[in-house]
Amino acid sequence: MKKINVTVWDETQGPIGPYSNGIYQAIADFLVESGQFGKVRTATQPEPEHGLTMEVLADTDVLIYWAHNHHGTVEDEIVERIRKRVNEGMGLLILHSAHGSKIFAKLLGTDALHLRWREASEVERVWKIESNHPITAGLPDYFEIPKSEMYGEQFCIPTPDELLFISWHQGGEVFRSGCTFKRGNGKIFFFAPGHEGFPIYYMPEVQQIIINASKWAAPLGDEPIKLQNVTKSPEALRIGDKTE
Amino acid sequence: MKKINVTVWDETQGPIGPYSNGIYQAIADFLVESGQFGKVRTATQPEPEHGLTMEVLADTDVLIYWAHNHHGTVEDEIVERIRKRVNEGMGLLILHSAHGSKIFAKLLGTDALHLRWREASEVERVWKIESNHPITAGLPDYFEIPKSEMYGEQFCIPTPDELLFISWHQGGEVFRSGCTFKRGNGKIFFFAPGHEGFPIYYMPEVQQIIINASKWAAPLGDEPIKLQNVTKSPEALRIGDKTE
Amino acid sequence: MKKINVTVWDETQGPIGPYSNGIYQAIADFLVESGQFGKVRTATQPEPEHGLTMEVLADTDVLIYWAHNHHGTVEDEIVERIRKRVNEGMGLLILHSAHGSKIFAKLLGTDALHLRWREASEVERVWKIESNHPITAGLPDYFEIPKSEMYGEQFCIPTPDELLFISWHQGGEVFRSGCTFKRGNGKIFFFAPGHEGFPIYYMPEVQQIIINASKWAAPLGDEPIKLQNVTKSPEALRIGDKTE
Amino acid sequence: MKKINVTVWDETQGPIGPYSNGIYQAIADFLVESGQFGKVRTATQPEPEHGLTMEVLADTDVLIYWAHNHHGTVEDEIVERIRKRVNEGMGLLILHSAHGSKIFAKLLGTDALHLRWREASEVERVWKIESNHPITAGLPDYFEIPKSEMYGEQFCIPTPDELLFISWHQGGEVFRSGCTFKRGNGKIFFFAPGHEGFPIYYMPEVQQIIINASKWAAPLGDEPIKLQNVTKSPEALRIGDKTE
Repeated sequence: MKKINVTVWDETQGPIGPYSNGIYQAIADFLVESGQFGKVRTATQPEPEHGLTMEVLADTDVLIYWAHNHHGTVEDEIVERIRKRVNEGMGLLILHSAHGSKIFAKLLGTDALHLRWREASEVERVWKIESNHPITAGLPDYFEIPKSEMYGEQFCIPTPDELLFISWHQGGEVFRSGCTFKRGNGKIFFFAPGHEGFPIYYMPEVQQIIINASKWAAPLGDEPIKLQNVTKSPEALRIGDKTE
Repeated sequence: MKKINVTVWDETQGPIGPYSNGIYQAIADFLVESGQFGKVRTATQPEPEHGLTMEVLADTDVLIYWAHNHHGTVEDEIVERIRKRVNEGMGLLILHSAHGSKIFAKLLGTDALHLRWREASEVERVWKIESNHPITAGLPDYFEIPKSEMYGEQFCIPTPDELLFISWHQGGEVFRSGCTFKRGNGKIFFFAPGHEGFPIYYMPEVQQIIINASKWAAPLGDEPIKLQNVTKSPEALRIGDKTE
Repeated sequence: MKKINVTVWDETQGPIGPYSNGIYQAIADFLVESGQFGKVRTATQPEPEHGLTMEVLADTDVLIYWAHNHHGTVEDEIVERIRKRVNEGMGLLILHSAHGSKIFAKLLGTDALHLRWREASEVERVWKIESNHPITAGLPDYFEIPKSEMYGEQFCIPTPDELLFISWHQGGEVFRSGCTFKRGNGKIFFFAPGHEGFPIYYMPEVQQIIINASKWAAPLGDEPIKLQNVTKSPEALRIGDKTE
Repeated sequence: MKKINVTVWDETQGPIGPYSNGIYQAIADFLVESGQFGKVRTATQPEPEHGLTMEVLADTDVLIYWAHNHHGTVEDEIVERIRKRVNEGMGLLILHSAHGSKIFAKLLGTDALHLRWREASEVERVWKIESNHPITAGLPDYFEIPKSEMYGEQFCIPTPDELLFISWHQGGEVFRSGCTFKRGNGKIFFFAPGHEGFPIYYMPEVQQIIINASKWAAPLGDEPIKLQNVTKSPEALRIGDKTE
């Protein structure tokens, strides 16, 4: 079975909050350590073409995308490039504040930036809604994030194909914190927790979810859906075959 | 109850195929005749701002959109304007070859242009998949379009919220020809039949579907979903109220 | 437009908790007071055939079902009678602890009894997930129930067709507290709040939801889906018609 | 990785139509030949407990169910046993005329017997609706069954979680011929083709679909969803932990 190549994308380089090598490197590290993936790359916004050249994307099975403050300066051409690759089959994980990214809005068709939020340091309790699903496999009924930013409903997304997690926030809100979507051949997983100020990506449950989702989102090898002008109909072909 | 204002949009003006006053006027005519709507406007691509000024859209509850050959020349600013209004709650009907429009792709996030097609003159039989639904109310189990262009699967759309019609094509294909989607507060209905060369919009079943869908898609008056920074939590508010 | 006939069903008769005439009567009262319905009946488990005779069900557009402690003694024949009527098009509202009823399990196919619960007296905050939907029309972003029993995830239901409300519970749980399902022609709405010990059905938001849902669930008049042996195909019929 | 145990169930024993050892044995044969499964058992209705003892079901990861003429004589106790195991996580494949089985109706909650049918010998063309899905992996855009019975819409099922195949029938009908559902932890796949008079289960595409679906439906090892009375809330537990 072909190994899954993952590219972890971040809007900044270098240390941030509790992540001495950046969030992207923290995520890449546990993916590598799991031994379950092929190439694990990182790419960042300051690099040429935001590190997402045609070559990199063509060799990426799953793109993990974290961003917060620089959505506006991501180039539209690169956003379109990602959208196209997702439609072709590349998996995409949208983490935390990347809900406000251009690529997420472009794939969903909604103002996914729109939600209720509070720069908080509150408990978030993540509840599993679906079991016997590849992304939630092995997870407990719930787990607690001691300090988390608050994201709450109403969240401007289309009805997800699958709702896997709902979060309880200490201040009184709820949030659909784990959702899947499919666009063309591409599988998308949104996972809400992950503020840059808290060590959330060091939590084993969160790492398990990201590992599970990366495996789930990997393409199975099908051709992209195409525009096809079929001048000869299947019935014409079928009857033709018989008469020959 | 507030009357529903409908705007029927077309990419061209003037007669086309069997429609002596254009497809847009044919649709506007049966909407008016039904007596079930408020203002029924038409708007066309050649007009300034494609006839879809801020004022027109603000006064439109449901936009009906037909287009075929000029998707590429629709201005991006107008497309974004429509997308925004749909997210705010305006209903949208996407008819026939408008599957390839910028606005449909932008709302779905997929290459909705991509499907199988054949410039044909074949029977299309439209099967009702859901009954007891506002859009299919009063329709028979199926109806036949004597001459129709072929649109077939695989059609590059996200899983619809509701699948209402599936078409059988004489040449051997099937198609999800009636689908609903929701984006933000806006309800969207895609209906496949309607080639400009055939008198399909004169068929009573098709008119019934478009009338039904226009009523279904009309907004109920809710506020758009917003980005809200809630610095004081509901729990803080609640406890505060108690202690006062 | 035909008036909607509603039957409110309860497992017991007489006063319970804050409801001096029973929960069923409290619900019937505000439905009548709204002036938006036709016949508003009540029916209870102690009556012959549980008050749900063939005649009553045939004249019922929407059945509202509240039950808690006597699920086991509801006769299977009556359960099957309700199931059949729902498939034919009768709407059904399943309230609170009726999640554990035979009829809900029979319609869903899951052990819908299974959830997390606590006989509590805690705050429940009900969040609106979908706006511009007939059931949530006119409701605020959230409302608070000062004292409520806790129902929490994981809740053993199929993925709802629509998820309209998610509840936040003071003790730390979340719950999909407003969900729609369709079975055959019948629309089903589950709404979680409503413990017999608290005056929840006197709350205006809850009354609004039940009124909205009763209108939404009413059948539109379509024939039930039938088993049909079509010995002559649509194509045979079509070609036959032409040749005559 | 644990091997998947499959049990293939049939209502009759012995040869039928083109299947010299029965349909159940034909299916078991290609599953064994694929080398991708653990124990591949067969079980039939004439056996004690219909061959589906507690021990057999407990050791079955995926049950494949074919039936046609004897739905009425399947014992309710065994049906309930299967339903319970599906809710616990056992996968279930419902083949062809098993759409009319007690177990399918019980899991769906609808009169899934109800559809349009014709004892025909017509071409059925099976169209793939979703690519990049485990069940459709490796399949062409469509394939043709030269002779097939007709099953057509409207089909009385709830909206499937996923719609994977739609069939075109020569006589003019369409059918949702490949659908997934989830009930509790159990994954269900319905696949329509497979009349006992035609050699459909010998077709490589059909075998691929059944192999794919059996792998997809296998449980991942999660505990069943339970009714849990949580007298101590997560918040009480959390705060308790801190104060100790």
